[in-house]
Amino acid sequence: MTAVTRPGGRTAAVRDAVLRAAADLLVESGLEGLELAAVAERAEVGKSTVYRRWGSVPALVADLLVDMADTSSRRPATGSLSTDLLAAAKLIRRTLTDPRQGPLFKAIIATATCDPTTAHALAAFYRKRVDEVSHVVTAAVDRGEAPDGVDAREVIRHLSAPLYYRFLTDTAPISAADVRRSVALTMAGVQAGVFGP
Amino acid sequence: MTAVTRPGGRTAAVRDAVLRAAADLLVESGLEGLELAAVAERAEVGKSTVYRRWGSVPALVADLLVDMADTSSRRPATGSLSTDLLAAAKLIRRTLTDPRQGPLFKAIIATATCDPTTAHALAAFYRKRVDEVSHVVTAAVDRGEAPDGVDAREVIRHLSAPLYYRFLTDTAPISAADVRRSVALTMAGVQAGVFGP
Repeated sequence: MTAVTRPGGRTAAVRDAVLRAAADLLVESGLEGLELAAVAERAEVGKSTVYRRWGSVPALVADLLVDMADTSSRRPATGSLSTDLLAAAKLIRRTLTDPRQGPLFKAIIATATCDPTTAHALAAFYRKRVDEVSHVVTAAVDRGEAPDGVDAREVIRHLSAPLYYRFLTDTAPISAADVRRSVALTMAGVQAGVFGP
Repeated sequence: MTAVTRPGGRTAAVRDAVLRAAADLLVESGLEGLELAAVAERAEVGKSTVYRRWGSVPALVADLLVDMADTSSRRPATGSLSTDLLAAAKLIRRTLTDPRQGPLFKAIIATATCDPTTAHALAAFYRKRVDEVSHVVTAAVDRGEAPDGVDAREVIRHLSAPLYYRFLTDTAPISAADVRRSVALTMAGVQAGVFGP
């Protein structure tokens, strides 16, 4: 078999269409609305292609998370740790309160609670995202703004946690005050040596 | 109609059986396994009773949360803020890593992401639980261990958040180190004035 698939060509276009359709269905009706046949129809792609390439809903959600991780790598670089953390926390707030991204994250996190494949893909997604943002902490260490040996990933995880806790356990939206408090708490923790060394 | 229902009598027994059956089904198969007919069968209660009294799955989950809030009011009182917070964080870890409670919370939080009735009941549950635990902070204010005017509820929310973030976005279990770090961070925040006044 000689597959004619140049990079970024038809194969990539099919994947884009399928992942977009999967995200649309998750946003509109949650995990229950996500079936491979419906994804294929919405993406205007042959059902057999979707079944052959992704095989199952969890595998499709896992690939969606890989794609989301690849396309979400903006790093703040404002020159100071507190303003970098503020930029990162604001981006989390913007993402989770976005009318499309918010429901998409909720649907994926809900799926992860009951499906191990999605749970692993989601954990990998957050590891990658946290790794990317944690560079603001290592840059702060280089500038002497944070102690050498600080656990940069844990700093970013604790910056994110209060915003996700609001997102998932409360009906009140994530506020600007939530963002500022999370940054202030994380900075206090860095200064008090909570994240090491 | 003269209903013969003494307090704690048959009505309470029916509710206990129905809520226990609902929790069992949520633990075993998540929201998808929760149907009123299945709950009635498992609880050995007439279907019509369950339909008449709860009416819908979201209403049943909401009542389950009311019951969970009523029966979970242990307050730490060790005499110092940091050990009270440690006791509270340990209880959260114990609950979320419990083989029954953990999956139950995951199923309810997942349900809340896609159902407004459950979301409101869940938010009310956490408001009540956070309120109860926040007495350790007001007691610390009375002892002069924390500044007057500190937002006790936000202290407890930020103590809980990293543990829930681990629970919902990571496959690694909540560790004893996670508990200690969350307490240390919260204490650093109280001392730095992050939670007011």
